[in-house]
Parts: sequence; C-alpha cells; structure tokens
Amino acid sequence: MSCNLLKGKKGIIFGALNEQSIAWKVAERAVEEGAEIVLTNTAVSIRMGTIGQLAEKCGTIVVPADATSVDDLSTLVDKAMEHFGGKFDFVLHSIGMSPNVRKGRTYDDLDYDYLAKTLDISAISFHKMIQVLRKKDALNEWGSIVALSYIAAQRTLYGYNDMADAKALLESIARSFGYIYGREKHVRINTVSQSPTPTTAGSGVLGLGDLMEFAESMSPLGNATAADCADYVLTLFSDLTRKVTMQNLYHDGGFSMMGMSRRAMRIYEKGMRFDDVVDNNYPFGKNEEQE
Amino acid sequence: MSCNLLKGKKGIIFGALNEQSIAWKVAERAVEEGAEIVLTNTAVSIRMGTIGQLAEKCGTIVVPADATSVDDLSTLVDKAMEHFGGKFDFVLHSIGMSPNVRKGRTYDDLDYDYLAKTLDISAISFHKMIQVLRKKDALNEWGSIVALSYIAAQRTLYGYNDMADAKALLESIARSFGYIYGREKHVRINTVSQSPTPTTAGSGVLGLGDLMEFAESMSPLGNATAADCADYVLTLFSDLTRKVTMQNLYHDGGFSMMGMSRRAMRIYEKGMRFDDVVDNNYPFGKNEEQE
Amino acid sequence: MSCNLLKGKKGIIFGALNEQSIAWKVAERAVEEGAEIVLTNTAVSIRMGTIGQLAEKCGTIVVPADATSVDDLSTLVDKAMEHFGGKFDFVLHSIGMSPNVRKGRTYDDLDYDYLAKTLDISAISFHKMIQVLRKKDALNEWGSIVALSYIAAQRTLYGYNDMADAKALLESIARSFGYIYGREKHVRINTVSQSPTPTTAGSGVLGLGDLMEFAESMSPLGNATAADCADYVLTLFSDLTRKVTMQNLYHDGGFSMMGMSRRAMRIYEKGMRFDDVVDNNYPFGKNEEQE
Amino acid sequence: MSCNLLKGKKGIIFGALNEQSIAWKVAERAVEEGAEIVLTNTAVSIRMGTIGQLAEKCGTIVVPADATSVDDLSTLVDKAMEHFGGKFDFVLHSIGMSPNVRKGRTYDDLDYDYLAKTLDISAISFHKMIQVLRKKDALNEWGSIVALSYIAAQRTLYGYNDMADAKALLESIARSFGYIYGREKHVRINTVSQSPTPTTAGSGVLGLGDLMEFAESMSPLGNATAADCADYVLTLFSDLTRKVTMQNLYHDGGFSMMGMSRRAMRIYEKGMRFDDVVDNNYPFGKNEEQE
Repeated sequence: MSCNLLKGKKGIIFGALNEQSIAWKVAERAVEEGAEIVLTNTAVSIRMGTIGQLAEKCGTIVVPADATSVDDLSTLVDKAMEHFGGKFDFVLHSIGMSPNVRKGRTYDDLDYDYLAKTLDISAISFHKMIQVLRKKDALNEWGSIVALSYIAAQRTLYGYNDMADAKALLESIARSFGYIYGREKHVRINTVSQSPTPTTAGSGVLGLGDLMEFAESMSPLGNATAADCADYVLTLFSDLTRKVTMQNLYHDGGFSMMGMSRRAMRIYEKGMRFDDVVDNNYPFGKNEEQE
Repeated sequence: MSCNLLKGKKGIIFGALNEQSIAWKVAERAVEEGAEIVLTNTAVSIRMGTIGQLAEKCGTIVVPADATSVDDLSTLVDKAMEHFGGKFDFVLHSIGMSPNVRKGRTYDDLDYDYLAKTLDISAISFHKMIQVLRKKDALNEWGSIVALSYIAAQRTLYGYNDMADAKALLESIARSFGYIYGREKHVRINTVSQSPTPTTAGSGVLGLGDLMEFAESMSPLGNATAADCADYVLTLFSDLTRKVTMQNLYHDGGFSMMGMSRRAMRIYEKGMRFDDVVDNNYPFGKNEEQE
Repeated sequence: MSCNLLKGKKGIIFGALNEQSIAWKVAERAVEEGAEIVLTNTAVSIRMGTIGQLAEKCGTIVVPADATSVDDLSTLVDKAMEHFGGKFDFVLHSIGMSPNVRKGRTYDDLDYDYLAKTLDISAISFHKMIQVLRKKDALNEWGSIVALSYIAAQRTLYGYNDMADAKALLESIARSFGYIYGREKHVRINTVSQSPTPTTAGSGVLGLGDLMEFAESMSPLGNATAADCADYVLTLFSDLTRKVTMQNLYHDGGFSMMGMSRRAMRIYEKGMRFDDVVDNNYPFGKNEEQE
Repeated sequence: MSCNLLKGKKGIIFGALNEQSIAWKVAERAVEEGAEIVLTNTAVSIRMGTIGQLAEKCGTIVVPADATSVDDLSTLVDKAMEHFGGKFDFVLHSIGMSPNVRKGRTYDDLDYDYLAKTLDISAISFHKMIQVLRKKDALNEWGSIVALSYIAAQRTLYGYNDMADAKALLESIARSFGYIYGREKHVRINTVSQSPTPTTAGSGVLGLGDLMEFAESMSPLGNATAADCADYVLTLFSDLTRKVTMQNLYHDGGFSMMGMSRRAMRIYEKGMRFDDVVDNNYPFGKNEEQE
C-alpha cells in the first residue's frame, strides 16, 4: 500500500545496518511513499552490514558518520543539504549500544567509562544531531525528528542494564529539545517506544528471545514488527501529525498498558506448576551468574 | 492534501454538531481520503445543528441515536451495516456533556444524578458503543476505534469539574476494552487527548477562552485545531498504525510535556507585577463565586 | 514498633470487615500510634464480619453507613464529630465491589445497571464522602484523606473487569477534589495503589491467587501485605507528609516499575517449555469461558 | 514534633552546604528522630558552606568526598562503617550541578564536556554511590536510599536546561538499581520530586524566583519547603515505608497533578490584559537572549 504520504519530503535515516534493521524498513517505506532520503551509519557498521544495497535500492548515497562526533554530524548535514539542494524535513535516529552489555558487565558492576559511552552513543548523540541541525538551520518549518526508544525507560526489565538509563535520557532530550525547536521552527521531536524487535542490535540483550515471547503473549495485538514500526514512523514524518511533539509514543501492540493478559497468565501458571521439575538441560545457572 | 489514505475504509462518526465540531472535520477529511462514512448524533443535536449539510456534502446518511441507549446503538449499527453492505472499519466517539457544568454546580456541590449523567453520556456511552459493535461483530479485523479526551483526565484544571472524572473513566474504558477487542479481533482502541478547542461543546466550560490562551502560550507548536485533530485521527484509522492500541495520545502542540514555557512565564510575570492594580471592570468576583 | 506518630489525631475508617481487611490493620495501627478512631461499614458487612471485635479492641464505636447514601454519610459524620467532640483529622476509604464480577458478567458483556453500582460503590462513594465532610467542615486544617486503589487503574489485568474503570475514576476524584479541598482547607487527598492482597474483597477477583504469585515474583521486595499497607497509610495520616496531595502512591514492593524480573522470567520460561504438556486436571477451560 | 521515628537507624547525608540546604534539614530532623548520621560533601562545598556547624550540632563527623569519584565514595563508606561500628540504614543523595547552566550555555548550544559533567555530578554519582554501597555490602536489609529530583524530569521548564535530562537519568537509575538492590537485600531506592526550593543550588537556575511563585499559585497546598521535605524524607527512611521502592514521589503541594488553578489563572489573565503595557524597567530582554 502506498499513497505518496511523504511526497516531496526529504530526510536523513540513521542506523540502517541490514534488512532486519528498523531503519532499513523506514528507509524503504519512506522512498515508497515518495520521499528522498540520505542514509548514514558509522564506518564500521557500513562495512559490517549491507547498507550499500539499501542505498542502491533507494537511489541515494550513504554518508559515513559517527553520531557521537559533532564534526561528523556537521559534515553529514552539509552533504545532505548539498544532496537535497537545500533544507530537509525529517530525521530518524535509530542508534543504541552498550559496551557494558557487550562485555557482560552487570548493572551492579558497571564500568563507568563504558557507561559514558552507552549514554553518548545511545542518547547524547541525539542531542548532538539536533543541535547540529538547528545551528545549521537545516530543517524546514514543521519538520519531524523521531528516535527509537524502549519501555525500559519507564519500567525495569531484567538484563536490559544501562540501556534503560540511556533510553530514559534519550526521551528526556526529545522533550527538552522538542520545546526549543518547536517554539522556534515548529519542528517536532518524538520518540517511538517499540516492541522488542529481533534486530542485530536487539539480539545483544540478555534473554531477548524469551522476553519477546512474553511481550507477544502480553500484547493484545502481538509485538509490533520492524515493518509495522516503519509504517508508524511514516505517519510521524507526514503532515498529518504536525501538532504531536515531545511525546513518547508506544508502538507495541498494547504491551505498555497491560498488567497481565489471560494468555501470559496461562503460560505463567504452567511454569509455576512445573517449577520443581528437575531439568538438567535448562541453562538457568548461566543467567543467574550474569545478572 | 489527499492521498487516499483511507481508501476502501468505512466507519461511523459520532458527535458532529456543526462546522466547529472536531467530528465534522474528521468526517470531511475521512471522505476526502477515500472513506465511506455514516453520521450519527442525538435527535436534539441533529435539530440544533447542521449535520444534514455535512451528510449531503459527504453523500451519506444521518442515523439519530442516543449513545447512552443500547437499543439506539444497536439500531445504528444495524443501519450502518446495511448502508455499508457489511462490516466496517472505524468509529469516532466525540461525545461529552456535563449537566453539573451546565447548571453551574461546582465540584464540591455536585448533584449525583447529574454526575451519573455526565459519566453515562461522556464515558459509559463509549463502552456501550463498543459492546454493541462487538456483540454484532460489526468491525473488520484490524479495525480502529478512537475517542476524544482531554488532559483533565490526568491533571486538574480549574473549572473543568466532573468532566475530568468522565475523561479518566473514558480513557480507562479504552484500555480495558482495547485488551479484549484487540486479542480477539485485532481491533485497536485509543483516545486522543486534544488541545482545548473552541467547539460548541467546549465553550460551556468555565473560562475556556483564557485557558486556551494559556495553553497556546505553553505549547511550543501552539494549540492543535479541530482541523489538525482530524488529520491526526485519520492516521489512527489508517493501516499505518495497526499496532497502536490502548493508548492515550496527546495531540496538543506539546502542552502535556511542558512545565513552563518562556512565553507563558513572561505573561505570568506581568500578571504578578500588576496583581495589585485596581481594576473595577474585571470580573474575578464571579469566577470566585462559581468555583 | 510504636512512636505515637498519630498522637492527638482522630479519624474515620471505612471498610473493615474482618482481620484480613486492610482497613482493620489501619484501625489497629492508628490506635497503637495514639489516634482515636470511629469505624464504619454497611449494615450487611457489620453482620457478616467481625468489626464489633475491632471496635472493642480499639475502644470505639461502629456507625453503620452505606457509603453510597449521602444521608447515611451525613449521619456518620455528625456522629463522629459528636464522638470526637469536634472536627477530626483523617479518613480512610477502603471500599470496592463489582456486581458484574460477582455475577460473572465479563467485560464485553457488562450489565449497565451493575456497572453503575460498581462505580457508585467503589468510586463515587469517595466523592460523596468528601463532599459531605467539606459541607460540614468536619476536617481540621491539614487533614488527610486516603483511598485504596490498584494498578488496574493504569494497566489492564485479565479478569479485573469493571473494577479497573472504577479505580481510574476513584483516582481522578482524588485529584479533582484534592485541588479544591487543598486550596481551601489544606486537606490533602491521595490514593494508595496497593499490591494484590488476600482480603475477602480481593478474593472475588478471577484468578487473584495466581496473579498474586506473579506480582510476588515480579516485585523486588515482594508483595506488600495488609499490615505493610497499614504502616504506609499511617505516614500519610501523619504530619510528616503534609505537602503530599493529589497523588496515586504505589505501595507494591516495586511491581509498578517492573517490566520483567529475572525470577518471573524463569517461571515464565518453564511455562513456555511445558506449554504443550497435556494436563487434564488443569482448569484452563473455565477461565477461557469466563473471560 | 519528634517521636523517635528513626531510633537506632544510621545513615549518610550527602549535599548539606548551609542552612538553606534540604540535606541540612534532613540531617537535623533525622538526628531529632533518633538517628545517627555521617555528613559528606565535596572539599570545596565544605569550605564554602557551614557544614562544620551542622556536624557539631548533630554530634558527628564530616567526611569530604567527591561523589563522582569511586575512590572517594569507597573511602567515605569505609569511614562511615567505622564510625557506626558496622552497617547502616539510609542514604540521602542531594547533589546536582550543571556547568552549562553556570556558564550560560543554553540548551541549543550545550558544551558536551559540560553536559558529561552535569550528568556525572547530578545522576551518575548516584549510581556510583549505590554500586559502592552494594559492593561493600554496607547497608542493612530493608535499608533506604533517597535522591532528590525535580519535575523537570517529566516536563520541560524554560531555563532548567540540561538539569532536566540529568534528573530523568537520576530517576531511571533509581528504578534500575532499585530492582537489583531490592531483590537481593531488600534495600529500597526512591526519588523525591520536590517543589522548587530556594537553596543555594536552586538559585542558579534562570528565573527560579518567578517559577517558584508560579508553582506556589498552582499548588493547592503551596510549595513544599526544605523543612517539609525533610519530614517527608524521614518517612521514607523509617520502617513504615518498607515496601515502597523504585518510585518517583512528588512532594510538591499538588503541583504535579495540576493543569491550571484558579489562582494562577487570575494572575495569568492579568498578565494577558497588561501584555501591551510599556515597561522599560522590566528585564525581559535579558531572558530572551539567554534562552
């Protein structure tokens, strides 16, 4: 289904690694809906992933940029404006990484240099990106900026570690800058709090697979997929949502508003009844050690 | 701007009174975007307002129904299914009225029969409507139901009276039924928490004019208008938001996430400095008496 | 442990049925901390339960009152003022009942007369109580009113039915009246959102037992008991919390802020693995029929 | 009023500078209620302020520590355990500072080294403090940790700048660590979201005076003072609140739940009417330049 929802709009998409990436789906769909885009990711991610194929498909360029570097962001925005022949309309921030998670440091044994990196990559990069956009006056009036977030910003999930804090910071930046950029240029800034999604980034989180199954059984509509998320993000880039700003928008099949579903309770009850069943193959020991 | 966003979709719109009504704008825009609609309102509102003109413009019918009457709702849904030749896809609930507000009963002197009516008209009607839809299996899979709400459900606003409680109840019904209808038919149910809007219904609230000016100066994007609201509701009826459910979505130019804006503070500071200026023409006495 | 925290304070406790009741524990502890109290419940509950013993223990009276009757509430407040020899300081509202739950009407098949009763008993009674208190100017300055709530007001829990909507309404009333009563008499009004608790009232809710076990394993501190709740309510009656008002305060061992705990996930994972185990004794069929 | 609420309890208080400090009031009141305390602050703050007088009054020691230094925190905890003769029960974190605010860098022109410092001092120090406490197993079971926060974590306030983001991060850390420390040692961790308070720290924020007057007129009970806050924090250190954890608790006279009060509206309306009055003495120009 396409209806040219983004006809004439232009934007930068951060964070497409491969076909699983939400950013990848957003890029594809934005172009389907009539938008022009510029892609960006770190040099390492460009090498590791397949963003080149996406660029080809979308008929556009990839500009390497480390989103924690103001210089890189500045170059990126210059190149995008050059590519577009002027200002543009939307930006997607789909970036997150925790060295503490990667290195297996639990939340009660954080390395503080790693924590600083988690926050810089996953949250402060969003501020840097917006500050660069605004200083260069790169966005058209009523432009739209979206970052991807997760409900760990509101509620603690076992194993999500310092990424929870990074997401809380990210959402706060959306509000704080949403006020400033909104009052001056009518640019809106929102975060989308997405279901757990089996992307390459997501798969680093401890026990994500089981968590996804739990979320699936809790959510009346099931988990939102990366493709669903792309559709939703398009509405936020479109002119139909021009008065929505500073919000954290749950796109999660209803998970955020659930306390307990019948389906999840049935599975949980089974688990309670079999809780004392001996099972030597079951790797609980490992999790317990980890966190 | 139209892109056939709702092509092939059909739905019922409750609550269009006249051109100021949000429901009116939603009806117009839905048709522009390719939808078929059926209009409904109470017999009294049909006589008082100009909904007939809207029906003509949209090439459709008006079915009188009192949304607090299960019988009326049942007839309405039957007629809509007859009109559409089967199931349909979306419903807008834009209904609210407080006899306590109308009769000048303050919140510390509520009439409890009036309160029961406020709740029945403004909130329980939403449950009745959904229960009838579901019993008749009237909605297609992945259908969308939206009700209009207001931030008074979360934060107390002087003069909004028992409508605040009605909106809190309304939003709770959206969650409770969103779970049930979602898990069984993938129908999503959300509320849109809209800026104060100068509709006929809104103008009954004490001091709405000044409140709108305050909201305007607090919101970085300014208040959302009825036309803005219509655009936003369309996205919620479209297939692009299929995994959003049980949410209360602020459509308010950022007001909900503001603690204090520079602009509102400037005006407030002026008020503080002139607080002792004698001004015999200023009708504060009346408000003080009222609440 | 007692430290005369409520020395010199006087108050009314609604809703003590028997020793399991939270209101019972609040009454006992309030008296331990130096307060004088008056007990009240409906005539039926007085007969069914053992509140007489509590009154004896606390050296006070029981005044029968139906909290949905403004007349009864008026008489109650008069008798309390007579008993205390003047104004008093605190009130606990611990009242809730759903005829829909009792009669097995599911949320998609509500009886609307029952719903009106659910709301009247569980929520509007709170407004009536406060309105009577205020009209009689029965509370001292900086008095404290507390009602017991549940997280179903924010998030849908399978089986909690229309009580969820009643709790949302109750919490809204606390805010709306908290503003009025606070600005005029400095009386504060809050709700305590308590862990699921094995009281006589609670046990009517479908599957509460399993839900309690789930909540226990999700909450880092475990579920809060009725005795814990009593302690917490005392702090809200004391002078140490005089600037807390209009809040919904979670007293739940951390449940409200959890997305998923390690302990709950382990049990859930077991359930997933044994989901296909045939088990003829397991009464899932019934639940499925019910809701 | 004292009732030995904290009899036998011991704890560390961070952040007392002078008599205006909330931490100062907490220290005084904790001792009044029977607690033993150890005071700490940075070497600079110890020199600048009068914490020595407080220590004398409370019959205790001051241990200098930079809360961003894990080494300093480690030494502090060792000294406190030595002073107390073993484990202790509570900790208050009352620390916040933004170099961006101090140097007049607005939110759309942040210095990122300063931002890293804002976050480290105002939020990450909280994690460091808790991680050190836990590694040393310094707190008794059912201990209580409290940090002071502000509603800017939820809603944007003109001029609060990157402190808003720091507070959002602080509150997230309370949740994330509250889960871990709770499940293992039953230690609870909460933040208190306090009214704007005229402390030395607070007075650095742009336009705090006027904001305080606005908050005062919005809050039905008026702003909570530093002394009020101390009383409230005591309840969180006491055994009466043992099942409250991972919460952000508003202690603000009701401000957080207000959309608009009659009193604030009256002043605002005056400001609207006098908005065009020429007033050469009024320093709006400066604010406009700043943010």
